[in-house]
Amino acid sequence: MIEEDRDRAEHVAGGGLLHRRALLTAAMVSAGGLITNAAAAGGAAPASMLKPGAPLSGYGTRASSGAAVQRIVPKLSFPGSGSSRTPLHLLEGTITPNGLHFERHHNGVPDIDPAQHELLVHGLVRQPLLFRYDDLLRYPRHSRILFVECSGNSSAIGAPQPVQVSAGQLNGLLSCAEWTGVRLSSLLEEAGMAPQATWVQAEGADAAAMTRSIPLSLCLDDAMIALFQNGEPLMPSQGLPMRLLLPGMEGNASVKWLRRLKLMAAPALSREETAKYTDLRTDGKADLFSLRMGVKSIILRPSFGLDLRGRGYQEISGLAWTGRGRIRSVEVSADGGASWAEAALDGPILPAALTRFRMPWHWNGAPAVLMSRATDQTGAVQPQRAAWIARYGVGQGYHSNAIQAWGVDAQGRVAHVYA
Amino acid sequence: MIEEDRDRAEHVAGGGLLHRRALLTAAMVSAGGLITNAAAAGGAAPASMLKPGAPLSGYGTRASSGAAVQRIVPKLSFPGSGSSRTPLHLLEGTITPNGLHFERHHNGVPDIDPAQHELLVHGLVRQPLLFRYDDLLRYPRHSRILFVECSGNSSAIGAPQPVQVSAGQLNGLLSCAEWTGVRLSSLLEEAGMAPQATWVQAEGADAAAMTRSIPLSLCLDDAMIALFQNGEPLMPSQGLPMRLLLPGMEGNASVKWLRRLKLMAAPALSREETAKYTDLRTDGKADLFSLRMGVKSIILRPSFGLDLRGRGYQEISGLAWTGRGRIRSVEVSADGGASWAEAALDGPILPAALTRFRMPWHWNGAPAVLMSRATDQTGAVQPQRAAWIARYGVGQGYHSNAIQAWGVDAQGRVAHVYA
Repeated sequence: MIEEDRDRAEHVAGGGLLHRRALLTAAMVSAGGLITNAAAAGGAAPASMLKPGAPLSGYGTRASSGAAVQRIVPKLSFPGSGSSRTPLHLLEGTITPNGLHFERHHNGVPDIDPAQHELLVHGLVRQPLLFRYDDLLRYPRHSRILFVECSGNSSAIGAPQPVQVSAGQLNGLLSCAEWTGVRLSSLLEEAGMAPQATWVQAEGADAAAMTRSIPLSLCLDDAMIALFQNGEPLMPSQGLPMRLLLPGMEGNASVKWLRRLKLMAAPALSREETAKYTDLRTDGKADLFSLRMGVKSIILRPSFGLDLRGRGYQEISGLAWTGRGRIRSVEVSADGGASWAEAALDGPILPAALTRFRMPWHWNGAPAVLMSRATDQTGAVQPQRAAWIARYGVGQGYHSNAIQAWGVDAQGRVAHVYA
Repeated sequence: MIEEDRDRAEHVAGGGLLHRRALLTAAMVSAGGLITNAAAAGGAAPASMLKPGAPLSGYGTRASSGAAVQRIVPKLSFPGSGSSRTPLHLLEGTITPNGLHFERHHNGVPDIDPAQHELLVHGLVRQPLLFRYDDLLRYPRHSRILFVECSGNSSAIGAPQPVQVSAGQLNGLLSCAEWTGVRLSSLLEEAGMAPQATWVQAEGADAAAMTRSIPLSLCLDDAMIALFQNGEPLMPSQGLPMRLLLPGMEGNASVKWLRRLKLMAAPALSREETAKYTDLRTDGKADLFSLRMGVKSIILRPSFGLDLRGRGYQEISGLAWTGRGRIRSVEVSADGGASWAEAALDGPILPAALTRFRMPWHWNGAPAVLMSRATDQTGAVQPQRAAWIARYGVGQGYHSNAIQAWGVDAQGRVAHVYA
């Protein structure tokens, strides 16, 4: 009875949410199997101890067992165009392995020899310049951990009925890596910017000639020409030999296979910044160049396909991020938003990077509705889905950062719900 | 002349070291090629724009071009035993891709099905416990970016003459990743520690039965049972299904393929903690259980095999780390230690993680000797090689954290030197 009271005292919100300090002790889990003959258990050498293992290798590979996590590739896609998604619900932490970083290509992955690639800086400049890959390697570099999110990520949240897919399928146009490269401002300053230059058009060397206009102010802020991802040269699917990287902005603007930067007095208003990547509102107007990603969080565990395996202690875990600096806090609700408790955040909490949150939860077997709500350093709070729909209507697919919800039934099955 | 004076004013130490703020502007590089016909340069579409590229894939791969960096695998090694090294000199930032994390196996890489693996906690405990992989997935997790360094790393610095190999060959028993797992203290508390328990013996399920004794205090501090590396389940070569991870300690103690933890009243004094991984001193005594790695830094660029390609601006770049918290500063010398200047550090600077340092340098074509010297938050300073040799003698191969030096000749060729 006393034990029960103490347990109750640690509850900080409805539905069984515990204080985040409970993550520091695992006494509530007790998942270890009791054994009576430890000597026998420890003495039985497994097969792996009976013969030498595999040799050294030049590039490590993953296990052939079910542990080999794959990107989510659609069964049908237009030749050359499409996207694969990071299986976020099967991953941990915040760093995405390079092989699992989401892909979005508009005409396939080009095969470019870095030694043959050139980057042209031209337009409203004092002197047009041409940079080879080796030229760029001579410039000062810097490294930053940054998320990349496609602005079409989580667009299914705009569907009339909640689609029943995994959290990775729903939100996996999102990844995070340590990027290293050259400051874009260095190259622009070297070329010399004309006073009337206010926009930069970036073009990729892929067969779609992916082209986006970017305000010059963003290019002079913290934009990077990225050459390395998680330490190694970019993979072809991430833009080898070089890509633009705009911290906190929609992924599409971080043009891959970058070959051209043109300084201009106005945006080009290309297809990918007018017909596409533009947010039509219910009032009939559209948000153009809404490049900066909003504050957002998603619960990855539990989620659709990752049902609860029994009552008692569970860790609710997910990711939070914002295009406006750092995440300040993430709150979690287990009762559909009636009450909220603050989650623990794994450090370091970095600007324009993913932040992992964790919330201890005692599930008593009753149906529950799980939600997460992030707040960033500017005080911006992730919106309710209803507010989102009121602004953009059903079916608008860009820049969705609305709160998502997972319903848990009495059997522990998890479903995507609107709450 | 005025230009030259301004340039000179920015020099902060001998041999052409510039103030680290010079990294923020690249005006001194000017590597971009001037062009007179920008329209023609931008108009010539490369082959990659003329046909659709490759399709989406479940797990991204690297380019087939020379950009595919490999681990350094020795030509000869004993069957089942050996090490491969991270090619640090070819990488950037601080995160090591999982496929490039160094390997050290004592009898090869076992192939273990996580579903069949068990972890036994026994010895001086109230109740022996057996944990399956799925059991551990129920416990609270946390993520941390941590280095792992073999205590035999950089042992070549103890050779009588400087060996001429790459910085990766010399120092590549060092990697860094974001690890996610369960606190070891949780499992020990659940089993219940007897009052006389002061050591924990960890055993791997490999064919060497790698076994190390670790002070219980370290296990109750921040030790982790790691299940994920850079987001994905561990690779077999890194310990799938689970490994011990002791932040800041020598890699050998972070036992891979962990199958057994035995609480004891004294260390087992096994082969790997007496005959091996023990530091024999010139006074005839040996340092046992010198688990915590010392403060250290290495210059990776320029380095042997990465010669300078001409006079003028260069970025000197490398890594610093310590087993005692965070790196406080890294100083660089271009005149063999006569004068030093403080390098810029890429954030975040995390405890027991790698920190990337960068130093702008104007090379005037004269011979130079480059060195780096790290200081950690405890005030510990990386020792000179001479002090190191005085303590341990020539040929002692463990825990070498002595200052290293690269000599640059008038042709820009880089050689390993003792200075």
